[in-house]
Parts: sequence; structure tokens; C-alpha cells
Amino acid sequence: MNPIAFPTHWPVIAHADAPQSLIGQLRERFGSQLSTSMAVREQHGRDESPFDVPPPSAVVFAERTTDVEDAVRLCAQFETPVIAYGAGSSIEGHLLAVKGGICIDVSRMDQIVSLNAEDMTVTVQPGVTRKQLNEAIKDSGLFFPIDPGADASIGGMTATRASGTNAVRYGTMRENVLALEVVTANGERVRTGTRAKKSSAGYDLTRLFVGSEGTLGVMTEITVRLYPTPEAISAAVCSFVSISQATETVIQIIQMGIPIARVELLDANTVRMVNVHSKLALREEPMLLMEFHGSPASVKEQAELVQDIAADNGGNAFAWSATPEDRTRLWTARHNAYFAAIQSKPGCRAVTTDVCVPISRLADCLLESIDEANASGIPYFLVGHVGDGNFHFGYLIDPGVSAERDTAEALNRRLVERALRLGGTCTGEHGVGLHKIGFLEQEAGSAAIAVMRAIKQALDPRNIMNPGKIFAQL
Amino acid sequence: MNPIAFPTHWPVIAHADAPQSLIGQLRERFGSQLSTSMAVREQHGRDESPFDVPPPSAVVFAERTTDVEDAVRLCAQFETPVIAYGAGSSIEGHLLAVKGGICIDVSRMDQIVSLNAEDMTVTVQPGVTRKQLNEAIKDSGLFFPIDPGADASIGGMTATRASGTNAVRYGTMRENVLALEVVTANGERVRTGTRAKKSSAGYDLTRLFVGSEGTLGVMTEITVRLYPTPEAISAAVCSFVSISQATETVIQIIQMGIPIARVELLDANTVRMVNVHSKLALREEPMLLMEFHGSPASVKEQAELVQDIAADNGGNAFAWSATPEDRTRLWTARHNAYFAAIQSKPGCRAVTTDVCVPISRLADCLLESIDEANASGIPYFLVGHVGDGNFHFGYLIDPGVSAERDTAEALNRRLVERALRLGGTCTGEHGVGLHKIGFLEQEAGSAAIAVMRAIKQALDPRNIMNPGKIFAQL
Repeated sequence: MNPIAFPTHWPVIAHADAPQSLIGQLRERFGSQLSTSMAVREQHGRDESPFDVPPPSAVVFAERTTDVEDAVRLCAQFETPVIAYGAGSSIEGHLLAVKGGICIDVSRMDQIVSLNAEDMTVTVQPGVTRKQLNEAIKDSGLFFPIDPGADASIGGMTATRASGTNAVRYGTMRENVLALEVVTANGERVRTGTRAKKSSAGYDLTRLFVGSEGTLGVMTEITVRLYPTPEAISAAVCSFVSISQATETVIQIIQMGIPIARVELLDANTVRMVNVHSKLALREEPMLLMEFHGSPASVKEQAELVQDIAADNGGNAFAWSATPEDRTRLWTARHNAYFAAIQSKPGCRAVTTDVCVPISRLADCLLESIDEANASGIPYFLVGHVGDGNFHFGYLIDPGVSAERDTAEALNRRLVERALRLGGTCTGEHGVGLHKIGFLEQEAGSAAIAVMRAIKQALDPRNIMNPGKIFAQL
Repeated sequence: MNPIAFPTHWPVIAHADAPQSLIGQLRERFGSQLSTSMAVREQHGRDESPFDVPPPSAVVFAERTTDVEDAVRLCAQFETPVIAYGAGSSIEGHLLAVKGGICIDVSRMDQIVSLNAEDMTVTVQPGVTRKQLNEAIKDSGLFFPIDPGADASIGGMTATRASGTNAVRYGTMRENVLALEVVTANGERVRTGTRAKKSSAGYDLTRLFVGSEGTLGVMTEITVRLYPTPEAISAAVCSFVSISQATETVIQIIQMGIPIARVELLDANTVRMVNVHSKLALREEPMLLMEFHGSPASVKEQAELVQDIAADNGGNAFAWSATPEDRTRLWTARHNAYFAAIQSKPGCRAVTTDVCVPISRLADCLLESIDEANASGIPYFLVGHVGDGNFHFGYLIDPGVSAERDTAEALNRRLVERALRLGGTCTGEHGVGLHKIGFLEQEAGSAAIAVMRAIKQALDPRNIMNPGKIFAQL
């Protein structure tokens, strides 16, 4: 696959090979846990973002916290960058070695450290993936709701403040991480938070590290909240003639305080792609895909209320998926929207983006963005966690045609500017990475960026923790 | 009332008068908005904590953000401390001018800046109190749930990461503050967050300022989430023979995922005090006071489930308070527990404290702490937001008897050490202030404290923002 060249208006790539003496010391300390093979380096030098950057100089496969401490300490001595790597599912370029350095792969740190079922918390190592976690705890009657689509690692999800389809009810990683163990830039182990559900004890370091994208430290243990597996689950789909009707339905669901567990929007164009890919026969109209969790009575009540609201807003073909098989088929189709889109244009790559706006501005933001995408001639997919005002566009471009890439980048830029104008944020759940450095500056303003930079400088004075991400020229 | 002397093992008080030239410049800028009268200074030099510290040198009554900016900028020039003051309801000494300085009273900044009912958010100035906010929005069908008991200011609640009785369902200020405007130590205005419900855009500065107790900046605007006023509310009380039965009931309620809105514990001794003060006839046994929010059907279902759980755990006298009047009377009695306690020992003062533990350890923590308090001979009250594992002790001491104060401090110390041993935190919702500086060190450990100090130093290099709080020797 032909990678897309790094756009010229982005931060300068200052890739440098790590010093051979550092590699030597790492080899001495880590033996076969260190790899300098080009295949391994290249695998760790990319993520789901479509950009082309030279790979890191070596990969350390950490198996325990002391491995991370020692690797960071050695890199600190040589002022060499450190990039943590979990499942590699980032889509904003978080994992790229734009300034060179050593990758610390934590995927072998995949143990459940302790499950506290009575308190509904679990502590895991960073390489545990969300599916692995749910499999490991399935007999406890509990589940971990955060679902960004990909089978991401809990470490990566913490680092990017991930969320996904269930966030409308259960919150994001911001709300669900209770405590962390982090190795900071000097190779020291810091513990933040406790297993207590709330605390007023000092600065909220947990929340500072959540979403810091590897720029302040490498997470080595994460304690998250779990939830009781719902007694009853039901799902429904409903089609609408217009996006506005669908979003109005969502606004009313939220305003009535109905504790809907998932409410996803697909536009007609994306439903069409999903139908082809998953061999479904959904009406090719704007569609809400919903899920309700609770007691049987409460699920029934929620669903009936939602059905009434949808009908009031012109919703038609409100359909239940009563069986777990039906439900799984629908949600699998939703999660495969990305692949459905990719397959709709052979050889294409997706330039994906996400924004989040106050829900009252959702219809405006969506409609203008759809019009603009249609006018551009670039095919796209659109899926939204619309209960939170969050949605994704993926622009399907031919990587060999630079005009298509430029058009996609222009669409992305106008989408983000629109979201900011409407009181929203440049990324609801993907993170800043490389792609949104300029947009973060627009959103936060120079005073807030100065505060972030001051924190970065205070905690990582040598600038070795995933440098070149979040901020320009750091 | 005889204030309690500052315990000798606490940080050294280094009170110094502000330079006369600073006072002169403040007078020039602020005119009648500045007061140096001893009565005003003394009123602003204490809070609900029982300690005796000289007052600030002057009080600026800020009316707008530019007032705060100018006051901070002038103080920064003279390296003079700045202490923000809202409703004065802190109980851990946050407002005391331990290093002298200027108090910025923001209580006149009491405007609702903008209500966005459709998005269920509101932006307020910091001096708005929680009752004022709920009064102002009562026609919108929305309410602000965070209820720390006192009619605290939203600014103060943000600064201490407050919560209270509704947090078990609606979360704390950590979960409910979306965005802030803050004046930082150089007098600059910083905006954090947006009105979007979630974001992955850069460091979570909002969460960093929430709970920073005035040590990183003065909040000048706060955007918080609102919730639909529940269609139906019902309350119930239930008595138990033992604390363990009550806590087991709570654990099961939470584990079943019942969305209870409030679940408060009072021990038999506190119920007795409340009965006397509020002329009630509650059974003088450990008691849970509960509230359910939702649709009429869901409230009924929740309450029936809870009644069953309580009965399984030996609960008796499960009683409904069907009418709003009944409900108000019960909750008023609960909120007056503090005053009920104070009146039970004429002339006493309360040394109050709060801790929060994982809910599975709640019974252990409570039972040992109650035994210890009973053995000490010091009367006390005990109320708990037990759905979160959070509870308060207030030790009722004669301020003229230093042995009583020492005993209360020893009880507090052992309570906190127990909470930490059980995986909890030294304060669930009061904050660190002065009183818990040492306990925060125990809880967080030296590496995490070093990270907090590095942040403080980076954002406030002259150490003028509420110095002497949270950390020793800063």
C-alpha cells in the first residue's frame, strides 16, 4: 500500500537514529526482548494513520514495570525519544517516530493484576485489550463498557482518552479510569489515584495522564471501573427521511433523561455501504441504531419511550432485534462500517477524523459537512456516537492521487473549524497525535497551550516522551 | 468562640503584611471595591475550619474577570499571595492567609452567563451558589445535582472537587465541570474545555484546575452539566440492627446497578441527635436514607428492589416518604445533622473529616472508626454518602480543652490511616487545605507529590496562588 506523504504544513520531521551506545546498553539489559530487525521496527513505526515516517531505531518488548523503568532511564541518559506501543490502532499518528527513538512495546504486559468484583474495579497491565478484559471477567457478572471499535489496548485507550458507542451512558476513559501507575520521563514510577470512587486529595494526576498521548509518561498499570452486566439488553433500528429528524430524536431522548446505552447514527450513504458489506437489507436512509440496558421492565419502558419520540419525529420502520444473534449482527455491521467503506472503493485509504459538538448544534454540523463532502466528489462514510454529539467522517481517497488527499485534508479542516465555531472540540475521541496539532491550537488558544507546554516541560524537561505529538515544535 | 490554635506539627505560618505600595495601587485601581477594614479582613480570614490565623491584608471585591486579572497582576508584581473567596464554607482551612496576602472575594460575580437548556449546560460566574443556580434554572426543567450540604459557591465547589449526597448517581464536580475560564498566576485568562460533552483534545486542564484549591488560578467562569428534573422522586428510610447490615445493603444496591440517586447512612448516635434537633421520631438505629429518581415506573421498580435487598439484610421499618413535604423534612434533618450534633454539646466545636474507601471495605472502616471514637469518650456524629464509600466524622470538642483537640486529631489521623490501608483516599470531598497536607503525602507518595509540585512550580513560579495549601513548604 502506498503511504501518504507527510503533509508539508505539519511539524518538521526530525528523525534521528538512536546512538549505537544506547542500543548496545539496551541489548545488554534486554537481550532477546530487544529487536532491531527492520521488519519489527517498521511494524512499530506505523499505526492506522496513513503517514510515512522512518521507523524507531529499536523495539523493547517490556514484560514488567521494571523493564519500562530501565528502558526509559537509559533513553533519558541519551536524551533519546521513547514511544509506547500497545495495539497499534491509533489513527492520528500517535505512534510515529517523528523524532526517532526507541519504541517500548507493552503488548506482553497483558495480565489482569487484580479484579475486585465487589467494588466493581479491575487493575490491568497496559497491554490488555478491551476484548481480552471482557473475556477475562465474564464470569464476574461485570463488564467494561468502553468500546472504541478496534480491539485497542487499555493502555492506548487511556493515553488517548478513548470512548465509543457506550459512552453516552457509561462515560469515557476520563470518567472510568480510577488510578494509574505511570513511569515518568526520569524513569520513576508514580502512582496516581486510589480505588476509592471519588477523591479531593490534591491535583488530579490521573486525569492529567489520561489523554496525554504518551507525552508525559508510559502507563504500566491501569485501574478502571466495571459495571454490572445488564439483566436485559435490547436493540432497535429506526430510519428517518432526514438527518435532522434523526438528530432531533436523539436530542429529545437525552433531554428526557432516558438512560440509553448506545445511539449511533449512520447516514444513507453509509447504510448503503454496510448493506453491501454485511449483506443486510437496511433501509438506505439516515438510521439510528440503539441499545437499551437495564431490568426487563426498564428496558421495555425506555424502548417504548424512544419509539414514541422517533415516531413523533417522522421515524419509520422502527424495528427490534430481539435475539442476541440479531443484535450481534447489527452491531458487527456497525463496527464494520469502516471496512465496508474501504471496500466500496478498491485501493482506497481513509482519511478519518472525528469532532464533537454540543448536541443542539449536531444537525447543523452534520448537514453542512455532508453537503460539503458531497460537493467535493470524494466518497466518505459517516458514523456518529450522536448521543454525545460526536461523529466520524472517513474520506476515501486514492493514495496515489495527491489532489484527493488535499481535498480530504481541506474537508477535514473545514469540518473541524465548523465544530469549533459551534462550541465543540477538534476531536471527541481520537486524540491530537500529529494530525490535529494545529486544530488544538485553534481550539484551546495560545494561553491554554502555554499552560500545557509548561506542564510538559516541567514533567519532561529533556522532551523524550513521545516528542512531536500534541504540540508543534516540542 | 475560642478558636483552636494552629497545631504545631503543621506547616509553619509565615504570615506577612502585604506591602503598603501594593495596597495603594489596589486602592487606586479598585476604589470602594477594596476594603482594608479589620472586620472585613477578619471575616475573610476564616472559614468553617476551627483555626486561628491572621487575616489577609485587604479584600478586593471582584465584579468581573478583568478585576481578577488586575488584582492578580498587581499581586504578582509584589509577589504577594492571592486567596480566592466564594461562600467561605471550606472546612479544611483553604481560605486562611497562612502566608498573608490579598483576598479576592468573587461573591459579587454571581451572574448566570448563559443557560443552554437544549444541551443541558450552564455557564456561571464563580460566586453563584448552588441554590441560586437551581433557583435560576428552575423553569428550564433542568437541575444541577451537586449538593455538598452548605450553599457553597460553584467556584468553591470547583476548587475543592466537591460532591455530596447525589454523587452516587450524578458524579462529582470532576465529572460535571465541562469548561473553565481561569485567571492564572501571571494574571492571564485561560479557557479550558468546550461545551462538547467529551473531548480528546490535549491535556485535560479542566480536570487539573478542578480540585486545585486555588493554588493554580482563580476561576472566573464555570460551565457545568445539568440534568433533567426527574419526573418522579421518592424517598425512603430503613433502619438496621447493625452498620454491617446497612453497608451490605448498599453494596448490593450498587452491584445490581440500581441507579439510586442518594443513599445516606447515619449511625444510631447521629439519628439520636437528629431526632432531638429536628423533633423527629426515627428509630435510633443505623439508618439508610434513600432517594430514587426516574419515571414513575422506574422509581417504583428501583424502590421495590431496594426494599427487597434491605429486607434480605435484616432491614426493618422500611418507610416511604410519599409527599414532597415529608421528603423535604427528612433531607433537611439529614443536612442539619451537623447542627444537631453541635447543639448536643453546648459550646463545642466540630473537628470534621471525611474519607472515601472502596465500598467493599466500608463496613470495616466504619466499624473500627466507631469503636475507636466510642473508646475515646469524645462525642461525634457520623454521616456517610455510602453509595460512594465516602463518610464524614465530626468530633465534638470543647475548644478550651487542648486534650480534647489532641484526641480528635488522633482519631482523625487513625481514621485516615485506616482508609489509606483499605485502598481509599484521605479526603473524598473536603479537599486537602491545611489539615490534610501530611495525609496527602502519605496517600500519594513522594513521587506523585513531586509531580504535583513540579506542576505548581511551572504554573505559579512565584508561588502566589493560595500558598501553603495542599503541600508543605510551598
